Amino acid sequence: MGGAILSDLLTEVLIPVAAAVGIGFALLQWVLVSKVKLTPERPAQGANKNGYSDYLIEEEEGLNDHNVVVKCAEIQNAISEGATSFLFTEYQYVGIFMIAFAVLIFLFLGSVEGFSTKSHPCTYDKSKTCKPALANAIFSTVSFLLGAITSLVSGFLGMKIATYANARTTLEARKGVGKAFITAFRSGAVMGFLLAANGLLVLYIAINLLKIYYGEDWEGLFESITGYGLGGSSMALFGRVGGGIYTKAADVGADLVGKVERNIPEDDPRNPAVIADNVGDNVGDIAGMGSDLFGSYAESSCAALVVASISSFGINHDFTGMCYPLLISSLGIIVCLITTLFATDFFEIKAVKEIEPALKKQLIISTALMTVAIAIVSWIALPSKFTIYDFGTQKSVKNWELFFCVAVGLWAGLIIGFVTEYFTSNAYSPVQDVADSCRTGAATNVIFGLALGYKSVIIPIFAIAVSIYVSFSLAAMYGIAVAALGMLSTIATGLAIDAYGPISDNAGGIAEMAGMSHRIRERTDALDAAGNTTAAIGKGFAIGSAALVSLALFGAFVSRAGIASVNVLSPKVFIGLIVGAMLPYWFSAMTMKSVGSAALKMVEEVRRQFNTIPGLMEGSAKPDYATCVKISTDASIKEMIPPGALVMLTPLIVGTLFGVETLSGVLAGALVSGVQIAISASNTGGAWDNAKKYIEAGASEHARTLGPKGSDPHKAAVIGDTIGDPLKDTSGPSLNILIKLMAVESLVFAPFFAAHGGLLFKI
Amino acid sequence: MGGAILSDLLTEVLIPVAAAVGIGFALLQWVLVSKVKLTPERPAQGANKNGYSDYLIEEEEGLNDHNVVVKCAEIQNAISEGATSFLFTEYQYVGIFMIAFAVLIFLFLGSVEGFSTKSHPCTYDKSKTCKPALANAIFSTVSFLLGAITSLVSGFLGMKIATYANARTTLEARKGVGKAFITAFRSGAVMGFLLAANGLLVLYIAINLLKIYYGEDWEGLFESITGYGLGGSSMALFGRVGGGIYTKAADVGADLVGKVERNIPEDDPRNPAVIADNVGDNVGDIAGMGSDLFGSYAESSCAALVVASISSFGINHDFTGMCYPLLISSLGIIVCLITTLFATDFFEIKAVKEIEPALKKQLIISTALMTVAIAIVSWIALPSKFTIYDFGTQKSVKNWELFFCVAVGLWAGLIIGFVTEYFTSNAYSPVQDVADSCRTGAATNVIFGLALGYKSVIIPIFAIAVSIYVSFSLAAMYGIAVAALGMLSTIATGLAIDAYGPISDNAGGIAEMAGMSHRIRERTDALDAAGNTTAAIGKGFAIGSAALVSLALFGAFVSRAGIASVNVLSPKVFIGLIVGAMLPYWFSAMTMKSVGSAALKMVEEVRRQFNTIPGLMEGSAKPDYATCVKISTDASIKEMIPPGALVMLTPLIVGTLFGVETLSGVLAGALVSGVQIAISASNTGGAWDNAKKYIEAGASEHARTLGPKGSDPHKAAVIGDTIGDPLKDTSGPSLNILIKLMAVESLVFAPFFAAHGGLLFKI
Repeated sequence: MGGAILSDLLTEVLIPVAAAVGIGFALLQWVLVSKVKLTPERPAQGANKNGYSDYLIEEEEGLNDHNVVVKCAEIQNAISEGATSFLFTEYQYVGIFMIAFAVLIFLFLGSVEGFSTKSHPCTYDKSKTCKPALANAIFSTVSFLLGAITSLVSGFLGMKIATYANARTTLEARKGVGKAFITAFRSGAVMGFLLAANGLLVLYIAINLLKIYYGEDWEGLFESITGYGLGGSSMALFGRVGGGIYTKAADVGADLVGKVERNIPEDDPRNPAVIADNVGDNVGDIAGMGSDLFGSYAESSCAALVVASISSFGINHDFTGMCYPLLISSLGIIVCLITTLFATDFFEIKAVKEIEPALKKQLIISTALMTVAIAIVSWIALPSKFTIYDFGTQKSVKNWELFFCVAVGLWAGLIIGFVTEYFTSNAYSPVQDVADSCRTGAATNVIFGLALGYKSVIIPIFAIAVSIYVSFSLAAMYGIAVAALGMLSTIATGLAIDAYGPISDNAGGIAEMAGMSHRIRERTDALDAAGNTTAAIGKGFAIGSAALVSLALFGAFVSRAGIASVNVLSPKVFIGLIVGAMLPYWFSAMTMKSVGSAALKMVEEVRRQFNTIPGLMEGSAKPDYATCVKISTDASIKEMIPPGALVMLTPLIVGTLFGVETLSGVLAGALVSGVQIAISASNTGGAWDNAKKYIEAGASEHARTLGPKGSDPHKAAVIGDTIGDPLKDTSGPSLNILIKLMAVESLVFAPFFAAHGGLLFKI
Repeated sequence: MGGAILSDLLTEVLIPVAAAVGIGFALLQWVLVSKVKLTPERPAQGANKNGYSDYLIEEEEGLNDHNVVVKCAEIQNAISEGATSFLFTEYQYVGIFMIAFAVLIFLFLGSVEGFSTKSHPCTYDKSKTCKPALANAIFSTVSFLLGAITSLVSGFLGMKIATYANARTTLEARKGVGKAFITAFRSGAVMGFLLAANGLLVLYIAINLLKIYYGEDWEGLFESITGYGLGGSSMALFGRVGGGIYTKAADVGADLVGKVERNIPEDDPRNPAVIADNVGDNVGDIAGMGSDLFGSYAESSCAALVVASISSFGINHDFTGMCYPLLISSLGIIVCLITTLFATDFFEIKAVKEIEPALKKQLIISTALMTVAIAIVSWIALPSKFTIYDFGTQKSVKNWELFFCVAVGLWAGLIIGFVTEYFTSNAYSPVQDVADSCRTGAATNVIFGLALGYKSVIIPIFAIAVSIYVSFSLAAMYGIAVAALGMLSTIATGLAIDAYGPISDNAGGIAEMAGMSHRIRERTDALDAAGNTTAAIGKGFAIGSAALVSLALFGAFVSRAGIASVNVLSPKVFIGLIVGAMLPYWFSAMTMKSVGSAALKMVEEVRRQFNTIPGLMEGSAKPDYATCVKISTDASIKEMIPPGALVMLTPLIVGTLFGVETLSGVLAGALVSGVQIAISASNTGGAWDNAKKYIEAGASEHARTLGPKGSDPHKAAVIGDTIGDPLKDTSGPSLNILIKLMAVESLVFAPFFAAHGGLLFKI
C-alpha cells in the first residue's frame, strides 16, 4: 500500500483554492452580465436614435426604445419580487419543518444509546474508542441544518441571478442571437459555479471543524457528516415539489384560459397569470433544480465519505485518500471553468442553428477534460493499493480501478445526456414523429408521446446498469458513490446549460410582454427550444445521478444497519420491494393532482379577471398580476405537504414498524421503479413541448404542413404540451428527491432502526 | 402427520366429475342462449305484428321488424367471420412459432445432460432414482404443446359464443334490459365455465397419463408438467398482444375518422372500420382475456404442483395432498355454478341501475361461498401436518395454515375488484372528478386520468403485499402459488362477468348498425357501461393473480436453478433488478406504438373509402368492411412480433449470457415494476371510458352540465377515451403476460441456465 503523491497539506490547500476560484469565476460572470444596462443609456439624445446605433433590430419603429427598456426592467422587477416573495414564504414553512425535523433527528439518534455521554468502542473497529452517541446526534443535527442552509442559499442565489438576467437577455436579443445566448449562458454559469463551489467549501469547512472535536474518531466524524446530505436533500424536496407545483400551476392555468379559451398568445401581457408563470420558471426550474442537484452532490460526497471512513483511508487516517471525492469535485470546478470559456469566449454563436451544437459541445468538452482530471486525481491522491469496506469485509482495490469507477459514471452521464437530447430535440425523428401524429389529433399525440417517453428509458437504464456493475464490482458501494460523483463532477457546466433554459424562456416572455418585435421573439424562442432540450438533459443527469446516489446511500444504510444480505426471497424484503415500487406512483398521483387542483384555482382567477376587469382583453386595462402570484404561492405551499409527508414519513414508519429488512426492500423498489417513471415523464414532457415548438417554428417542409399556429395539428400539440408540463417539471423530477431522500433518511436513522425497529414483527 | 380424510380414489373421481359438471353447465347455458332466434319467427303474419306481441319496444314503427332481425343476423355473421378469419391467420403464425419453440425447449432441456437416456439420482432426493433428462425434455415439450392447444381452444370457443350471443343480446334488449342482461351474462358464463373446466380436465388427464410412464418419479413428472403452464402462457402472449393491437387499431382508427373528423356516431354503419372494431372486441377482450386467465390458472397450478412434488406430498406420494390445487379448482367450478344462478335465475334485473350491483353481488357471493369451500378442501384433502419445500429446507405447515394462504389470495382478489370498481365506475367520485376536469379541456382530463390511475395502484399493491407476506410466511412458495389459485378459484364467475362486457359492447354496435331505436341503444349502453367496469375488474384480477403467479414461478425457478439467495446487494442481481424494472416500459412503448401505427393505417383506409366511395356519407352506398378487417389483421400480426420477441428472448439471453442470478433480478424487477404500470394503465383507461359515458348518459345534474354529446367537455372526454384505449386494452393487460411468461420460461429452462448459463461472466 504505497502512499499517495499528494501530501495532506497540499490537499488542505487545493480544495479551498478550487472552491474560491469557482466563486470568483461566478462573480466575474455576474459582473459581465451586469454590464447590460437595464436603464436607457442616453435618454437625453432623443427618440429617433436608440442608444445602440445601427446593429439593433430596426423594425421596432413604432416603439419608443426608452419605453421598451423601462418596460423590460419593470417586468423583471415584478418577476423578481414574485419569486422572492414565494421563496420567503416557502422558507418560513421549510424553516419550521427543518427545526422540527432537526429535533427528531436529535431525539432518534440520541435515544439509540440512551443519550449517553460516554465514549464507547467503535462499531466497525472494536479496538478503538469512539465519541459518545450523543455527540453524533448533536453533530448530525448541526450538519443537517448546515446542508439545508447551503441548499437554500444556493437555490436563492440562482433565482436571484436568473431574475437579474432574463430582461438583460431580452435586450441583448435585439443585438443578435449570439449576444443573447452569451448573456443567458453566463447567468446560468453564475448559478452553476456558485452552487458547486459553495457545496464543496461548506462541506470542506464542516469536515475540518468537526475534526477538531472528533480527532482520531473518523467513523463518528463522517457518520455525523451524513446529516449534511440529508439537509441538502430535505431542502430539495421542498424546492423541487413546491417549486414544481408553483411553476406548472401557473403555466397550465395561464395556458388553459389564455391560449385555449381566449386565443391570445403565450406570455401575452393581458393574461393575469403571465407574471406568475414566469416566476414559476425561476422558483421551479432554477431554485428547485439547483437544490436537487446540490442534494445529489452533497449526498454522493457523504455516501463516499462514510464508506471511506471505515475503509483503509479511514482506518489508516489517510486524509488525502479520504478527500478523494472532494478533490474530484475541486478539479471538476476547474474543468468546467475551462469548458465555459468555449461557449462564451473561444467561439461565438452567429446563427440560431448553432445554439444546440454549442450546448452539446459543452457536454462533450467537459466530459473529455474531466476524464483526464480524474486520471490525475486518481494517480496523485490515492495510494496504488488500498482496501474498501464491502459489507463486512475489506476489498482490495487499486487506484486505477477507482479511476474507472468515476469515469464510468461520468461517461454514463454523457450517454444519458445524448439519449435525452435525441428523444427531446426537434432535430431528430422521435419528436418529429410525435409532431406528425398531431395530424390525427390530440389522442394520437398523447399515445405517441407516452410511447416515446417509455422508449427513451431503455438506453439510460442500460448505461446506469453498466456503471453500477463496473463500479460495484471494482469498489463495492464506494465505487457506486464515486461513480455518482463522476456524473456530478461537471455539475457546474450541467447547471449552467440547465439554468440557461428557464432564463431564455423568461426572456421570451418579457419580449412578448414588453411588446417587442416578433423577430426578437423568434430569437428568444430559438434559445428557448434549445433550452427545453438542455432542461431535459439536465433532468436526465439529475435522475441518473440520483439513481447512483440512492444506491450508494442504500449500500451505506445497509452497512450501518448491520444487514448482511437483502434477499428478495424473504417475504419481509419482497413486500418492501413491491410496495417501494408503488411509492413513485402514489407520489406522482399526489403531485399531478396537486398541479391540477392548483391550476384549476388559477383558471378560475384568470377567468374572473377577464370577466370582471373591463378593457382587459382590449389591452386598455391592466390585469391584477399579484393575485395570481399569491394563488400560486398559497396553492403550492399547501399542496406540497402531502407528497412531502409521504417521502419523509415512509422511511420512519417502515423502519420503526417493519424493520430494516423491509425498509431495504422499499428503498430498492422505489429506486428501480422511480428512476423509470422519472426519465419517461421528463422526456415525454420535453418531447411534447418541442413538438409544439417544431410546428410553430415551421423550419422544414414537413413542419410547415402541420402548422401554422392555430391549425388543428397545432392545437393538438398544445394539448400535449400542457399535459407534459406537470410530467416534466413536477412529478418526474420530484421523483429524484423521493428516491434519494428516503435513502439518506434511512442512512441517518439506521442506528435507531437497527436498535429499535421492526416493532410490528416483534409482537 | 395424520392422513387426509379424502381417499386417493375419491380424488381421482371428484376432479373429472367437477370438470364434467362445469362443461355440462356451459353447454346448458349455450342451449339457453340459442333459444333466442335470429330468424324472424312468424314472417308470414304480416308487418304490423312483430312476433313478440306488445312487450317489444313500440317506437320502431318505421322499421320492418323482419328486416331488423335479418340485419342483426347479417352483422353478426360479418363479425363472426372477421373474428374467425383473424384467429385462423393468427393461429398459423402461432403454430409456426409453437413448433419452433417446442424444438427449442427440447434442445435446451435435452442438452443439459447431453440427451442422456439413462436414469439418474433425483435432484432433491439423491437416494431415489429419477427418469432420464431426455424423458423430461420430451414430456416438457409435449406438455407445452398441450397447454398451447388448450389455451387456443378455450379462446376460440369463447370468441365463438361471444359472436353467437351479441346479436341475440341486441334482440333481447327489445324486450327489456333484464332479458338482454341475462343473455349477455349466460354467454359470458359459457366461456368462463368451458375455460375453467377444460383447463382442469386437460391438466388432470395429462398428470394421469404421465404417471403411467413416470411411476414413482414425481419430481420428473411435475417438472415436465410445468411445460403446460409455459404453453398456456405463450399462447396468451399472442392472444393478448395480437388481439390487443387488433382491437385498438380498429377502435382508435374508427373513432378518429368517424367521431372526430366526420362527426358520425360510434358504431355508425357508414364507418368502414365498424365491423373491424366489433371483431376486435371479440378477439382482444374475449379470446385474449381468456387465454391470459387460462395462462395464469395453468401456471399457478403448475407452480404449486412442482413445489408440492418436492415437499412431503411428493416425497410420501400423497396423491390427494398433491391434488390440493386441482381440488380447489374443482370446488371453484361448483361454487361459481351456484353463484351464476343468482344472476340468471334467483333474481331478475328490472332496471338499468340494478346491473352493476348484480355483477358486484356475483363477486361477493362467489368469494363468500368459496371461502367455505376452501375450508372444506383444506380439511378433507390435507393431512393435519405436512412439510413444504422452502429453498433447501422443509418447512412444517398445518392444514389450516394452507387454508389461510388460499383464502388471503381469494379475498385480496375481491379487494382488488372493489378498488378497481371504485376507481373506474362512474357511480363514484374519482371518475366524476375526471369527467369534471373535461370542463377545462382534454389536457386536464388527461392529467387527472393519469393521476387517478397512479392512485388506484395503492390499495391493490397493499392487498397483494399482505397476501404475499401471509402466504409466504405460512407456506413459502407453495403458499404463494395456492394464494394465486385462491384468487383464480372463482375464475368461471370472473370470466363470465368479464366476457359480458364485450358482448354488450357488440350488442350496442349491432343495434346502431341495424338502425334500431335509440332506446335499444340506451339499454345496451347501460349494459356496456357496467361492462367497462367489470372489464376493469377482470383486468384487476388478471394482474393481481399474475403478480402472485409470477412470484410463485420465480420461487420455483430459484429452487430449480439451485440459488440459495437473491441478494440485491450483489451487482449481478441489482443490474438485473433495474433492467427488469425497465422492461415493462420498453414493452409498453412497443405495444403502444404498434397500436398507433396500426390505427394510422386504418385511418388512411377509412378516409380513402369516405373520399372515393360516392354516397357513403349519405348512407346510399355500403362501405368495404372486409378491407378494414384485413388491415387490422395484417397490422396486428406484424406488430405483435417485436414485443413478443422481447418477452420470449429476454430470459433466454439473460440466462445464457448473464446467468441465473441476473435473471432472478430481471424477474423480480419486471414483476414489481410491471404490476404497477399494468394496474394504472388499465384503470386510467377504464376511468376515461366511463367518464365519457358519464357525460353521454347525463344521468345526474352534474353530468348534464358537462354534456350533451358534442359539447366541448364531451369532446375532451372523447380524446381521453381514445388515449385510454391502447392503455387499457393493449399495453396494460399485455404486461401480465410479460411478467408471467418470463417467469415460467425461466422455470422451464432453469436446468439449462444453471448448467450452462452466465457465459459473459465466465469469460
